[in-house]
Amino acid sequence: MDIRKCTAEAIGTFWLTFAGCGSAVIAAGFPQVGIGLFGVALAFGLTVVTMAYAIGHISGCHLNPAVTCGLAAGGRFPAHDIAPYVVSQVAGGLVAAALLYAIAAGAPGFDLAKGFAANGYGEHSPGQYSLMSCLLAEVVLTMMFLFVIMGATHGKAPVGFAPLAIGLCLTLVHLVGIPITNLSVNPARSTGPAVFVGGWALAQLWLFWVAPIVGGVLGGVLYRAMSEEPPVQVAGMAPPAPAE
Amino acid sequence: MDIRKCTAEAIGTFWLTFAGCGSAVIAAGFPQVGIGLFGVALAFGLTVVTMAYAIGHISGCHLNPAVTCGLAAGGRFPAHDIAPYVVSQVAGGLVAAALLYAIAAGAPGFDLAKGFAANGYGEHSPGQYSLMSCLLAEVVLTMMFLFVIMGATHGKAPVGFAPLAIGLCLTLVHLVGIPITNLSVNPARSTGPAVFVGGWALAQLWLFWVAPIVGGVLGGVLYRAMSEEPPVQVAGMAPPAPAE
Amino acid sequence: MDIRKCTAEAIGTFWLTFAGCGSAVIAAGFPQVGIGLFGVALAFGLTVVTMAYAIGHISGCHLNPAVTCGLAAGGRFPAHDIAPYVVSQVAGGLVAAALLYAIAAGAPGFDLAKGFAANGYGEHSPGQYSLMSCLLAEVVLTMMFLFVIMGATHGKAPVGFAPLAIGLCLTLVHLVGIPITNLSVNPARSTGPAVFVGGWALAQLWLFWVAPIVGGVLGGVLYRAMSEEPPVQVAGMAPPAPAE
Amino acid sequence: MDIRKCTAEAIGTFWLTFAGCGSAVIAAGFPQVGIGLFGVALAFGLTVVTMAYAIGHISGCHLNPAVTCGLAAGGRFPAHDIAPYVVSQVAGGLVAAALLYAIAAGAPGFDLAKGFAANGYGEHSPGQYSLMSCLLAEVVLTMMFLFVIMGATHGKAPVGFAPLAIGLCLTLVHLVGIPITNLSVNPARSTGPAVFVGGWALAQLWLFWVAPIVGGVLGGVLYRAMSEEPPVQVAGMAPPAPAE
Repeated sequence: MDIRKCTAEAIGTFWLTFAGCGSAVIAAGFPQVGIGLFGVALAFGLTVVTMAYAIGHISGCHLNPAVTCGLAAGGRFPAHDIAPYVVSQVAGGLVAAALLYAIAAGAPGFDLAKGFAANGYGEHSPGQYSLMSCLLAEVVLTMMFLFVIMGATHGKAPVGFAPLAIGLCLTLVHLVGIPITNLSVNPARSTGPAVFVGGWALAQLWLFWVAPIVGGVLGGVLYRAMSEEPPVQVAGMAPPAPAE
Repeated sequence: MDIRKCTAEAIGTFWLTFAGCGSAVIAAGFPQVGIGLFGVALAFGLTVVTMAYAIGHISGCHLNPAVTCGLAAGGRFPAHDIAPYVVSQVAGGLVAAALLYAIAAGAPGFDLAKGFAANGYGEHSPGQYSLMSCLLAEVVLTMMFLFVIMGATHGKAPVGFAPLAIGLCLTLVHLVGIPITNLSVNPARSTGPAVFVGGWALAQLWLFWVAPIVGGVLGGVLYRAMSEEPPVQVAGMAPPAPAE
Repeated sequence: MDIRKCTAEAIGTFWLTFAGCGSAVIAAGFPQVGIGLFGVALAFGLTVVTMAYAIGHISGCHLNPAVTCGLAAGGRFPAHDIAPYVVSQVAGGLVAAALLYAIAAGAPGFDLAKGFAANGYGEHSPGQYSLMSCLLAEVVLTMMFLFVIMGATHGKAPVGFAPLAIGLCLTLVHLVGIPITNLSVNPARSTGPAVFVGGWALAQLWLFWVAPIVGGVLGGVLYRAMSEEPPVQVAGMAPPAPAE
Repeated sequence: MDIRKCTAEAIGTFWLTFAGCGSAVIAAGFPQVGIGLFGVALAFGLTVVTMAYAIGHISGCHLNPAVTCGLAAGGRFPAHDIAPYVVSQVAGGLVAAALLYAIAAGAPGFDLAKGFAANGYGEHSPGQYSLMSCLLAEVVLTMMFLFVIMGATHGKAPVGFAPLAIGLCLTLVHLVGIPITNLSVNPARSTGPAVFVGGWALAQLWLFWVAPIVGGVLGGVLYRAMSEEPPVQVAGMAPPAPAE
């Protein structure tokens, strides 16, 4: 365990959860000029773009237990480092939810019962999607997210662009999936708000651990199987360092 | 025929069709906060940005029979590989439509009759554009799309940026053309949803094969004619590998 | 005069005018899900991003008489090539307007009197801005546009990013100025639609030649004055070729 | 004091304030097709993207007293240069507000009392957020902004991408925070409009000096503490020059 890497993962996941969920809670439905689902999708993606350039060279910038597990399954990350990464990520997500609560509660009309950006299925799906649709969507979208991560950080991909490709892929999966589950693909991002909303959000949290991790592992394995040569040992999402 | 390349094309075209059409079917018209045509345009573009970084170094990331034909016409792709590429692309588009149907049907009120992101002209054009306008738009937009692809992957263009230029060009043609035909420029993307919608969508599908391929070939030829030196043999949309 | 460069400028300006104005005419106000001024701003910017990667290495990708004049004033472009560049750009803009007219007229309810994306001031300003406000806005926005072009193509700026910086700058000036004049900063883009709209649009066209060219020259001179060392002789907006 | 650097900072901060606030004042609420908070968020970010490529190699492109102070706290900027940078930035912000006023006042219905993009808390917060929420949000968002700046300009981050990462981070903090304070994270940007609005805006201006600077210093210190090796002496936000 490397304390610098774990700190970076905690701060990065804090940022993903705080700014991603924050854009949804604070700005999505602002009267007349709100940023909508589109703005939320971009916000989540930009948390990854910004952090991947800032800490990619420290920890690989996973910010997500499904990414950590998927990269391990794809042969890009050592299995014995999964636990400290995941713990750091969940800690970051929890602090983010607490701070977002402290800020959002300072506005008249704030109400946790509106959802606080928690993920849900069935009657708690924004568009009332069934459990099966929600499960399928989270698995497929996380699988493709990991497929893109594996490919964009491959040694033959152009150097330096992986943070853009990966962050914009997170935006893309949100453009598709917010109406289905409020979109997770990330157990740490889901856990923070669920703890504050409690009740149904905690009861449904299992899906947002199981589906993203299953999807992430599938994506890592799929890319590895398709890739001819032995995979390059790059530390996760980290853009390969400039050659110099 | 290279099985790795064909697999990559199938997965990539799956992603283009699933996430592009998925954003339209699931999120475009979500009440009050929907992503609109703008969000759909960005989603289609990001499917190419993400996949071009992920698999560009494997197959060139065409994801589109019109791109494959246009690059062949432009002297950048061997004619005898057109067939396996196109078959893989169409297969990916069909699987995408099936999976999207499985997910979307899990919401109350889902109705294939709303269009399922199929392309259409005349009375099935979103803005009721005439057959002639639709044909002209698809030819011109695909021609310019190929022109940009040829130029951005030219050996003198900056290294590594082609996926951004090409993906954002797909966003751009959608920003212009969704009201006209729901925008295709891609026969594989059109075929998937048409098979599920059936009826008028299948009857009108011919245009979304003919016009994009004609336009793509024109674009490839136009760039080649304008380009002084003999064209560089780069494998399609693939960003040239870093020099090292 | 170089026929390849002039052809590239004509095609590029065709694309800027066709796709930029096309997004406004066809998609901006589409009921419920239209792309709005934001989508139009992005479309104009993306025409430059895509073309700068595609033809920047051929002609420098000016696509705009104000850019050509500004770069000449800034010492980056030979004065005797201004005329053929400007003629090519205007020709591209005219063809674009004609083709856009042919497509747009294929929809019920199309009406040139709605403006056809022509630029205007006073009573023809979208937000009814006065002549003086419109003049000031076009001068300042074009000046800053050229300032960014001069800086982003400077020899000390990062290699390969100029097309992104310049295209996104065009998006930015549209985000500010569409309500003022429908935003020109480009006489060639203004001339195409004005010829079709006729009447007031032709009568007001002088401003969209004078203000952008004055602003462009000011921007070129300003950057050159601020820049300590003798300016690098890069061909306009062209991203410097990779070192190798 | 270097007159070229100070001129660059003044022009850059002029651009940030003029185009950022201008998009809000002129285009955000334009009837039916306005760019909304999303468009304003993108506009602010693009001012930094464009200027960082244009003048990053001259002054480091801070454009913001909180960035200058944060980089000094992080060991990346000499303390004795803080004063001339901050004075230049504030001057740029004031000129921008004056010019924006001159242009905006040329439209019927313009009214400074609508806010003129000034920042506020409590009853002048767009969403009526409390003083404590506003203070907390400005501190946290500026802290993370500086954290990203420190990381993206670190010697191990990919070369040339810092302007994108930093500009898009400014977009991101706006996507979260406009409803809270109209979003500052930048005392120079806040001062310009406040001087024109006067009254409450000047009375509340203290918060938009204190909170961003405190946050910026925290961000610089946080990154420096987390970073193992001695920080690389890069001039602020400037993308490291290409190796050659």
